[in-house]
Amino acid sequence: MSGEFDLIARCFAPLAGPEGLDLKDDAALFRPPEGEDIVITADANVAGVHFLEGEQADVIARRLLRTNLSDIAAKGARPLGYLLTLALPPSIDVAWLDRFAAGLAADQARYGVRLFGGDTVSTAGPVVASITALGAVASGRMIRRAGAAPGDAVFVTGTIGDAGLGLAVAEGRAAAGLTPAERQFLETRFKLPEPPVGFGAALGAAGLATAAADVSDGLVADAGHIAVASGVRIEIESAAAPCSPAALASGVDRAVLLTSGDDYEIVFTAHPGHAEALAELGALHGVRVTRIGAVSSCAGGQPSAVLLDSAGAETVLEKAGYTHR
Amino acid sequence: MSGEFDLIARCFAPLAGPEGLDLKDDAALFRPPEGEDIVITADANVAGVHFLEGEQADVIARRLLRTNLSDIAAKGARPLGYLLTLALPPSIDVAWLDRFAAGLAADQARYGVRLFGGDTVSTAGPVVASITALGAVASGRMIRRAGAAPGDAVFVTGTIGDAGLGLAVAEGRAAAGLTPAERQFLETRFKLPEPPVGFGAALGAAGLATAAADVSDGLVADAGHIAVASGVRIEIESAAAPCSPAALASGVDRAVLLTSGDDYEIVFTAHPGHAEALAELGALHGVRVTRIGAVSSCAGGQPSAVLLDSAGAETVLEKAGYTHR
Repeated sequence: MSGEFDLIARCFAPLAGPEGLDLKDDAALFRPPEGEDIVITADANVAGVHFLEGEQADVIARRLLRTNLSDIAAKGARPLGYLLTLALPPSIDVAWLDRFAAGLAADQARYGVRLFGGDTVSTAGPVVASITALGAVASGRMIRRAGAAPGDAVFVTGTIGDAGLGLAVAEGRAAAGLTPAERQFLETRFKLPEPPVGFGAALGAAGLATAAADVSDGLVADAGHIAVASGVRIEIESAAAPCSPAALASGVDRAVLLTSGDDYEIVFTAHPGHAEALAELGALHGVRVTRIGAVSSCAGGQPSAVLLDSAGAETVLEKAGYTHR
Repeated sequence: MSGEFDLIARCFAPLAGPEGLDLKDDAALFRPPEGEDIVITADANVAGVHFLEGEQADVIARRLLRTNLSDIAAKGARPLGYLLTLALPPSIDVAWLDRFAAGLAADQARYGVRLFGGDTVSTAGPVVASITALGAVASGRMIRRAGAAPGDAVFVTGTIGDAGLGLAVAEGRAAAGLTPAERQFLETRFKLPEPPVGFGAALGAAGLATAAADVSDGLVADAGHIAVASGVRIEIESAAAPCSPAALASGVDRAVLLTSGDDYEIVFTAHPGHAEALAELGALHGVRVTRIGAVSSCAGGQPSAVLLDSAGAETVLEKAGYTHR
C-alpha cells in the first residue's frame, strides 16, 4: 500500500463532510447545533471476533457504522458524523479499502452522516476498525437507561432474534428447517442490521420515552440494563415479543430468540397512555413498535428484567444475553 | 479476564467524567460550551508499530492520550475529554489494565480531561488502542493549517529532534557519545512527549497565529503541510531551530533532527509584530517559543517548506519527514 496520505486522499477524503476539512488538517472542526446536546459513542470491531475473516469489506464497514448509529438512535439523538480508525494488516489492498469506503459512502447517504476524521495504521494482526459517532438531541432530551418508572409500558422496535439466528446461519449452525430465502433474510439481519435511526431521533424529539437502550446484548439483557439503571422490575411477555416469520419458522425457542444479541433495535419504556402516539410515530418512520411488557416496582428485590411465559410464570434463562467479546 | 462489564467497572468507570454517565449507558452526553466550536481528532496506536512490544501499559496509555491532545492544542483548542477503544489479546491481564488506567488517570489530572466513553474488545493480534479526543475553541478561532501569509514569521514550541533520537535510543540504535542521563532524557522525550496543551489553548484564545500544525511527522514535513494548505513557501533557518543540549551532544546532523518525527510540539505562523507577545505567552505557560523562519510567496512554484543552512542555501533533504505507519 502506498503511504497513509495517498490512501486517505484516495479512499476517505471523498467521504469527509465540511467538518473534516478534506482530512487535510490535524483535527475536525464541528460547530455544535445551538440548544442541543451532543451524544457520542464508540465501538470497535475485530476480524474473526465481530465479523468473519473474509467478510466483504463494505459489509464490515456498514455494520460497524450502523452499530454505532444504533447507540445514537437509542438515546433519541439524530446522527451527525463519525471518526474512523483502522488498523490494517499487510494483506489489505487498495481494492479492499475502496470497497470499505464504498460501504461507508452508501450508509452515509442512507443515514445522512459525514466522515469527520480518523486515522489509519498498520498492524501485524487482524483488521481492527473503530468508529466514534456523534449525534445531537434537543438539550436535556437524551433518553437515558435510567428513567423507567413503575406503571410504564415496555416497547421494542422491529423484530427480535433474527440476528442471533443469522449468525448461526453464517457460521453453518443453521436451524435445519429453514428455506434458502429464510436463511438469506436472517443472515442479512445479522450482517446489515437496520437500526431505527429516524425513529430514534423522532422519539427523542417527541419526549415520549422515559428510558431506552439499544438491543445489542439481547432483549432481556438490555431491558435488564434499563431495569438496573432505573431501579425497577421489568416484565417482558414472551408471547408479545415481535419475531419475524423466518425466526418463528426456525422452531428455535422464544426464550433463546429473546436473549440472542445483535438485533440493534430499541427497547424503551413510556407511559402506557402514549402507546397510540408511539405506534403512529413508528408508522411514520416505517418502524414496527410493539408493546411487550410492563415496569413495576422491584419491591425490595434486585432490579431486573424477567421473561414471562404465556401462563405468566417467570422463564428461567440459561443466560440473559450475549456478552460481546 | 472476567467479562467486559467487570473490566469496565473496575478500570475505566473511575476515569469517567459526568459526560460518561459512569459508562453505564449506551453513549456519553456532552453539552457543548456556548459560543465555542468543537475540535475533534482520532489516533490509533498498535503494539510493535507505535510502541515497543512489552512497553509499560501506563506509558502506552499516556503517550496515546498525549498525541491526541497534541492535535487539539495545535488547533488552539483546550481539551475536554476523550473516548477510548481497546482491542486486547488474551495475554493482557487485569494488572496490565490497572496500570493502563493509572496512566490515563495521571494524565487526566495533568491535562484536565475526562473519559467520556469507549469500548473494549478481544483480538487475536497485538494491542490496538484508539482515542478520539474533543476540545473546545472560541467560535471561529480554530487555528487551521491554511492561513499562513507571505510576511508571516514561523515559530515552534519546545525543542525538536529529541523524540527521533529517543526512539533510536530505545531501539538500541543510540548515538554512541551520549551520557546515560542524555539517553534517558531523549528516550523519555519519545515515550512521554509533552505537547504544549495550555499554550495551544492560549494561542487559540489570543488569536495571534495565522496557521498551525502539530509536529508529528517532522518539523520540515509539518511546516510543509502548512505551506501546502496555505499556498505559500516556508523557509526554516536550520541554525535557528531549537535543539536540546542532549540532541546537540549526539552529534547527529541538524537536518536529521529537524526531519525526525514524534516531537508533538506546535509549529505555527504569525505576524512578526506578535513575536514579543508570543514569547510572553510562552513564558506564561512554561513553553519555549522560538522564531525559526519566514513565510513568503511561492511565486509560481509549488508550495513547500525548505530548510536553509547558515549560508542561506537550501538543504537537500533525503526525506522531509517521517511517515507514520
